[in-house]
Amino acid sequence: MTSTTPDVFAWLDTRSQARSRAGLTRSLRPRAADAAALDLASNDYLGLTRDPRVTEAAAAAARRWGAGATGSRLVTGSTELHAELEHELAEHCGAEAALVFSSGFLANLGALTALSGPGTLIVTDAHNHASLIDGCRLSRAEAAEAGHRDPAAVARLLAERVKKRALVVTDSVFSVDGDLAPLPELADACRAHGAALIVDDAHGLGVLGEGGQGGVHAAGLAGAADVVVTTTLSKSLGSQGGAVLGSRRVIAHLVDTARGFIFDTGLAPACVGGALAALRVLRAEPELAGRARGVARELAGRLGAAGFAVSSPSAAVVSVRAPSPAEAVEWAGRCRADGVAVGCFRPPSVPDQVSRLRLTARADLAAADLGRAVEVITRNAPAAARRER
Amino acid sequence: MTSTTPDVFAWLDTRSQARSRAGLTRSLRPRAADAAALDLASNDYLGLTRDPRVTEAAAAAARRWGAGATGSRLVTGSTELHAELEHELAEHCGAEAALVFSSGFLANLGALTALSGPGTLIVTDAHNHASLIDGCRLSRAEAAEAGHRDPAAVARLLAERVKKRALVVTDSVFSVDGDLAPLPELADACRAHGAALIVDDAHGLGVLGEGGQGGVHAAGLAGAADVVVTTTLSKSLGSQGGAVLGSRRVIAHLVDTARGFIFDTGLAPACVGGALAALRVLRAEPELAGRARGVARELAGRLGAAGFAVSSPSAAVVSVRAPSPAEAVEWAGRCRADGVAVGCFRPPSVPDQVSRLRLTARADLAAADLGRAVEVITRNAPAAARRER
Repeated sequence: MTSTTPDVFAWLDTRSQARSRAGLTRSLRPRAADAAALDLASNDYLGLTRDPRVTEAAAAAARRWGAGATGSRLVTGSTELHAELEHELAEHCGAEAALVFSSGFLANLGALTALSGPGTLIVTDAHNHASLIDGCRLSRAEAAEAGHRDPAAVARLLAERVKKRALVVTDSVFSVDGDLAPLPELADACRAHGAALIVDDAHGLGVLGEGGQGGVHAAGLAGAADVVVTTTLSKSLGSQGGAVLGSRRVIAHLVDTARGFIFDTGLAPACVGGALAALRVLRAEPELAGRARGVARELAGRLGAAGFAVSSPSAAVVSVRAPSPAEAVEWAGRCRADGVAVGCFRPPSVPDQVSRLRLTARADLAAADLGRAVEVITRNAPAAARRER
Repeated sequence: MTSTTPDVFAWLDTRSQARSRAGLTRSLRPRAADAAALDLASNDYLGLTRDPRVTEAAAAAARRWGAGATGSRLVTGSTELHAELEHELAEHCGAEAALVFSSGFLANLGALTALSGPGTLIVTDAHNHASLIDGCRLSRAEAAEAGHRDPAAVARLLAERVKKRALVVTDSVFSVDGDLAPLPELADACRAHGAALIVDDAHGLGVLGEGGQGGVHAAGLAGAADVVVTTTLSKSLGSQGGAVLGSRRVIAHLVDTARGFIFDTGLAPACVGGALAALRVLRAEPELAGRARGVARELAGRLGAAGFAVSSPSAAVVSVRAPSPAEAVEWAGRCRADGVAVGCFRPPSVPDQVSRLRLTARADLAAADLGRAVEVITRNAPAAARRER
């Protein structure tokens, strides 16, 4: 760039200064492989990411199939390993078929864009994940927000709609607070008004229902022809990637039309192999799901007793209110310095502009770990975090 | 679903029948690990996907770091391995900084949405990749198409714009035909009119320029403050994932604002380790890039001599026109049955509605492989594929 070239990115500095003043600057903190911190920040709900059964399967898949899928799923990027994972995942969740994407974010974009369009009304929950919001934007459908966990509002929007087709879209477990969507009531509203239901079960798979078959299964909706499930391979299944589960008709439609599927390199074999191994561990040890939920309840109970404003966990996520973005960052930083990693969620990553610590239970957390976590979180809390209750 | 429940997905059957009549139904063909076919269909341009240096690095990363990144990059999903890859990739491409995404598709969505918005005009090439098109849609910017490889049209649209800010967005190597964008001329147009240039170098990295430093480097634009590069780890680097390269200012802005970065699980360690190992092979053996280009020229030359309408390859992609979607599918199928895997691109995956075989050169293709490929493609060609010339 010569001195006469206009500085086309000068506006980035203005934005950066504004974020800095609001306490919203983020920075990457790469972790070491042998980091000793107690992990209450990741989404590794079943503790399988570093399980040797899972990591050895990932390693073996890289060796046998290559480090990458080499192309899009429709050209060279589908291996028999992808097909195996799709088959077992569908079976586990009680769906007819499954389709694996390279990320859960793209699975949501793919499902929403392929199953809607300008002739569709999409009714969304106000706390839906960013990928669902972006999927609505990308779809060119009309989108209407029905508050949070409000089936009556959903039914009203469906009844009043002008568009012929409609989708209702919700997370099963909302990612920030870990609260549950009222899936049976949403399904009733959909059926009364001729709408399809799309559920992102990213935080439900492996955690909710008998044996971790997920939130949709727990709600009695598994295999329903009018319900489509999206999920991730990167949380309970300890790997990377996403998937859509539904009827064969829906999956065939996605293969033909979902742009984030057609125009993206297939999921790397190591990720496919890792997720498949984790799924098999979960199926062999179905008690892992209940254990993750139990740890979350225990954690929330103890923090509540200590005077914090804590969510009531139904899955593996526990959130604790912080007085401000800056205090949330400091609080999390002090916990980290004391060897306990906790998540810190601030705007714009929270639906209600309220900053909080986000803690995740893991099925493999020991009682001593829990005690230490509660002690460290309490000791480092800003005073207002307890009074706020 | 009870018998009285409306069939909310009945419309999918109508769409499916229409695609079937047009010859546009797709199906997945999972491949075996030991598939013997000669591969001219993948994007494994340097033949590194199955290189033991790369697969062993992927396996070692899964063992050392876990099968997944465990969370988003800003929470627990950044490892020192991610930072190492970002550092070396930026160095290789001559950029100040790099940011790794879980897919190239998401890297494009992230860069375009974070660097534009309703106050921006995005000028696009008509042959841009689907992920760039979707990035424009998602950004809510005004988008204007400037034909294909037409810097004069780009300059005109920039000059006539009402919006204050502008981005020009192009592939460096267009994915279907392998032709090159006129990057120096586009940069001139941008600089004359106060616009930034975003280049998707997915098919250029590892193939173009001395040592495969990519199309932007080859055009003399590496490190320019007004140029942002997006790329993939899944083609020449044999793995999975994507990256954005640019000034530190641009990368910091993406960390704070790119939704497909903030709200997505970090790239799995095996993919990071595989890509890093492939990058190191490329840097140790810079001649790989020229070899891939040379194989492509040789392949195109021989097919042209045999009477086919072939693209003139500047990178590693060679395309051969087919008379119709149905004949393209049959042609590719017969080649595959004869042990040569070739890509088959049909609407809507082609910018001009023309179906073709898409062949990719690999740096490690032997002369005998090339001979066999040309022989099989020629023997199985529909008659009209040669007359069409």
